[in-house]
Amino acid sequence: MSNAAKDDRSADRTTVREGEIAVELPATTDAALYFIGRIRTPWHRRDECPKNGRESDAVCTVEVDPRWVEGLRGLETVSHVLLLYWMDKARRDLVVQAPRHYAEQRGTFALRSPVRPTPIAASVVRLVGIDGNKLSVIGLDCIDNTPLLDIKPYFASTDAVPDATVGWHAGRKR
Amino acid sequence: MSNAAKDDRSADRTTVREGEIAVELPATTDAALYFIGRIRTPWHRRDECPKNGRESDAVCTVEVDPRWVEGLRGLETVSHVLLLYWMDKARRDLVVQAPRHYAEQRGTFALRSPVRPTPIAASVVRLVGIDGNKLSVIGLDCIDNTPLLDIKPYFASTDAVPDATVGWHAGRKR
Repeated sequence: MSNAAKDDRSADRTTVREGEIAVELPATTDAALYFIGRIRTPWHRRDECPKNGRESDAVCTVEVDPRWVEGLRGLETVSHVLLLYWMDKARRDLVVQAPRHYAEQRGTFALRSPVRPTPIAASVVRLVGIDGNKLSVIGLDCIDNTPLLDIKPYFASTDAVPDATVGWHAGRKR
Repeated sequence: MSNAAKDDRSADRTTVREGEIAVELPATTDAALYFIGRIRTPWHRRDECPKNGRESDAVCTVEVDPRWVEGLRGLETVSHVLLLYWMDKARRDLVVQAPRHYAEQRGTFALRSPVRPTPIAASVVRLVGIDGNKLSVIGLDCIDNTPLLDIKPYFASTDAVPDATVGWHAGRKR
């Protein structure tokens, strides 16, 4: 998650800044989600959160609902996990965005902003330990009590692309 | 996605194999999704799909609904993208699974199986080109016409962990 992710739109979900484009959302939804737990972090407001997950060594806690706890069996052998979580405070109708700290506007799918039609974040975190239904992890940047959607083992063989580049971002401070 | 992902449960969503554990799903859902497009691949049945995304050089097409197409602005500067998509044929109630080709059963969250409470896949693919609302990508392993949920730029700085390990999987053929 880049700086853009800190651009909190929770207080105002209707204003469109210069250069931004909002679309009408579809009349109906297509699928439904269960929250499977909550993510506990030290950060209670968006402006308290680290700029991205690698900027903090804080140990955060992923609390899995008791219903799903047996799903953790075997996860203790994994060094890193991919967490999917629901950014429930973000508006979903912007296709072009102008984050405050960037000069240019960009398409939603070129950004890691929480503002997107599917407000789901994907974060790679280091797994420190598991105690019952609680995972201790390092590498999160989200606000406390964020709804959890999924936990996946991170496979370097398919998930790691160390030489990947983001042209528009090259040379910027993150 | 490992071999486990090929374990098609679409034909039978109620059978529980020896050692598997199903739970009762929650009575209500917590959030709703819009499909933002479709993924077109050469594979029409699960047993035709590659074992994982790195096992095929097939160029696949990500078709974004016209409503969202301006969201692609700036994405052409990106080498790799993270795709989230909806595995709509998978059951959601298994917490412990016994994939046919593994000796042991494992928790859902230790597997990349599509069978999970949130049946969303996260795949890293190479972006070959963009033409209007269509992205050409390499590195997918999903079935044709899979519903698309999100496109994100892949940042090596936060998404790549080349030395990550999955203990239970070490030494296995994938």
